[in-house]
Amino acid sequence: MSESNRLAESFNQTSFQLSGHGKWNVSVLKEAFEKVDEQLDSDRYGTGKIIEDFQTKMAVLTGKEAAVFFPSGTMAQQIALRIWCDEKALKKVAYHPLSHLEVHEEDGLKELHNIQSVLLADKSRVIELEDVTGLEEEIACLLLELPQREIGGQLPSFESLEQIVAYCQEKGIKLHLDGARLLEVLPYYNKSAAEVCALFDSVYLSVYKGIGGIAGAVLAGASDFIAKVKLWKRRYGGDLISLYPYIVSADYYYERRADKMGQYYEDAKELAVMFNGCHGVSTLPLEPVSNMFHVQFQHPKAQVAELLSDIHQQTGIGIANYLKEVKDARCSYEVSLGDMYREIPKNQLIEAFQLLEERMKQPL
Amino acid sequence: MSESNRLAESFNQTSFQLSGHGKWNVSVLKEAFEKVDEQLDSDRYGTGKIIEDFQTKMAVLTGKEAAVFFPSGTMAQQIALRIWCDEKALKKVAYHPLSHLEVHEEDGLKELHNIQSVLLADKSRVIELEDVTGLEEEIACLLLELPQREIGGQLPSFESLEQIVAYCQEKGIKLHLDGARLLEVLPYYNKSAAEVCALFDSVYLSVYKGIGGIAGAVLAGASDFIAKVKLWKRRYGGDLISLYPYIVSADYYYERRADKMGQYYEDAKELAVMFNGCHGVSTLPLEPVSNMFHVQFQHPKAQVAELLSDIHQQTGIGIANYLKEVKDARCSYEVSLGDMYREIPKNQLIEAFQLLEERMKQPL
Repeated sequence: MSESNRLAESFNQTSFQLSGHGKWNVSVLKEAFEKVDEQLDSDRYGTGKIIEDFQTKMAVLTGKEAAVFFPSGTMAQQIALRIWCDEKALKKVAYHPLSHLEVHEEDGLKELHNIQSVLLADKSRVIELEDVTGLEEEIACLLLELPQREIGGQLPSFESLEQIVAYCQEKGIKLHLDGARLLEVLPYYNKSAAEVCALFDSVYLSVYKGIGGIAGAVLAGASDFIAKVKLWKRRYGGDLISLYPYIVSADYYYERRADKMGQYYEDAKELAVMFNGCHGVSTLPLEPVSNMFHVQFQHPKAQVAELLSDIHQQTGIGIANYLKEVKDARCSYEVSLGDMYREIPKNQLIEAFQLLEERMKQPL
Repeated sequence: MSESNRLAESFNQTSFQLSGHGKWNVSVLKEAFEKVDEQLDSDRYGTGKIIEDFQTKMAVLTGKEAAVFFPSGTMAQQIALRIWCDEKALKKVAYHPLSHLEVHEEDGLKELHNIQSVLLADKSRVIELEDVTGLEEEIACLLLELPQREIGGQLPSFESLEQIVAYCQEKGIKLHLDGARLLEVLPYYNKSAAEVCALFDSVYLSVYKGIGGIAGAVLAGASDFIAKVKLWKRRYGGDLISLYPYIVSADYYYERRADKMGQYYEDAKELAVMFNGCHGVSTLPLEPVSNMFHVQFQHPKAQVAELLSDIHQQTGIGIANYLKEVKDARCSYEVSLGDMYREIPKNQLIEAFQLLEERMKQPL
């Protein structure tokens, strides 16, 4: 068995995990539907009480006039950018070089819309005001991702955000928020969702990250924008006859977790301290600003995989189910705090980190 | 209350319905998941046992090398056409003027892919060989919909299909099957799914029509075609982290209904005879060739809505929940036979049609 397979398998056999809300299996659906009346009518091509009620709830949350439920954020965000490009008759947008659109969508924005992207900032940090004022090309829309997931979930300061927004408004540049983890950044900013969203013309949020639904996304904005969004949702084949399996679970877990984002944030800071206390281990960012961070090991992947697998087996605590090679023969992985962390008995957690420290401080 | 609202409301209060498999509500999901193990792992971005097993089953059914599960047929079909257009470096396809792509997708194919469509045949009949041989423009792909839904589910003869296919192969035109109701046409053709699909380079089928799942579609074809399909599925935002709510229900109802398509076809023919026995009522086609047909009334919509509402209330049998105005002040609606028809007590069914005949033969 390869080290990677052993790591994933030993992780799957643990009783507790640092990350997430629990196993990614059918129980997520069964719990959400347990108390739902069998006779509740399905939504139907974007209409019906199930979908309309949840869309209204999300419009209120984000402080926007209207919201649409989508099967995926990929679809929702491409559509938002297309609408802003059409409005300005300019097929150019700007975003971070590690944006979801740039690294996970197989160039959908270019292939489906012929929209060009300008990459702002370098890969290691978030977009700041000078990146935007330094733009040499005209753009229709600036997409900001809060937090910037692929660099451990980093955030600009709220003041920096406000300055970027003021500059874009002056220049007639639309602002779109990739808020896949919107709720997760509210405790750090100490703002409501509506206060953050007020900075943006359009907002996307995911219902299966901090919220922990099954799949799906929400796109919110002004009514005239949302009317166009619905047209494009139909064009994409996103206007499914029934989206209720995702909507019911999104609503169920939203009600249970929206208020726990502060807890996840505090837990992330606590856990990061424990990682940073181990030789050759550090977190990015050093102090988390949301429920997520990256863990970086100063040892090669194969070696770290082996020692983590051993810890999984000895302690029953799942630390990582994968590792990614990063430059200089190091490796890293992502942690997102959820309900699971507080399930772990403290003594077992401490034991796991003691073992990690012992193994990491041994000479290579 | 308008006649249309009264029609829908009275329909919803009936105990039995002529069409379909039952109410479109959460019970469809609950039944499908009742016996599913909570610990069954979700699929994950197109991988995992749940999705791979069902895709293999659909590849075997259609006799193709591979198949992909999609959230919607709209997405699946646009992608198939895009791939065939790219292969020929020609952005032109042909289909029926009442194709789903032409009437239900807000011009997605043009807006997302800049693919032009040539409309073949007139609206009242299916595409025949002479429509294809008479094409004055070169096309990359011909899409055939079996049965042609918007004209009551009509079909060309199998011989006619074979002739079209032979001609297209000779001319290097790819053939795509809109087989939303593929299983539903097999009894009339007296062929296996694989025998029908062998005529086509790519095949789409729906899992929520005759099969009666919650939503979703399958696209099947050769392995190199499917590799491209998966790229495009990602670009569209169709590669959801979890599609299992649709896949589990698709598989559950497929296993229960795939073998009942012959029954639905026989029931459709029986029911059409009953409609055609009433004054001023006829079916299109006169003898169904699948589980579906249209019912046409020679009276205005408002009047028919009223009399059908009365019959719903008097008999408890739901005949129609909507009516569509058609030319010459007539109206029509669509019937698709499913599990519900055989639930209706025969004497109640006969009573309903006696009432319909009485009301329709009254002078206007």
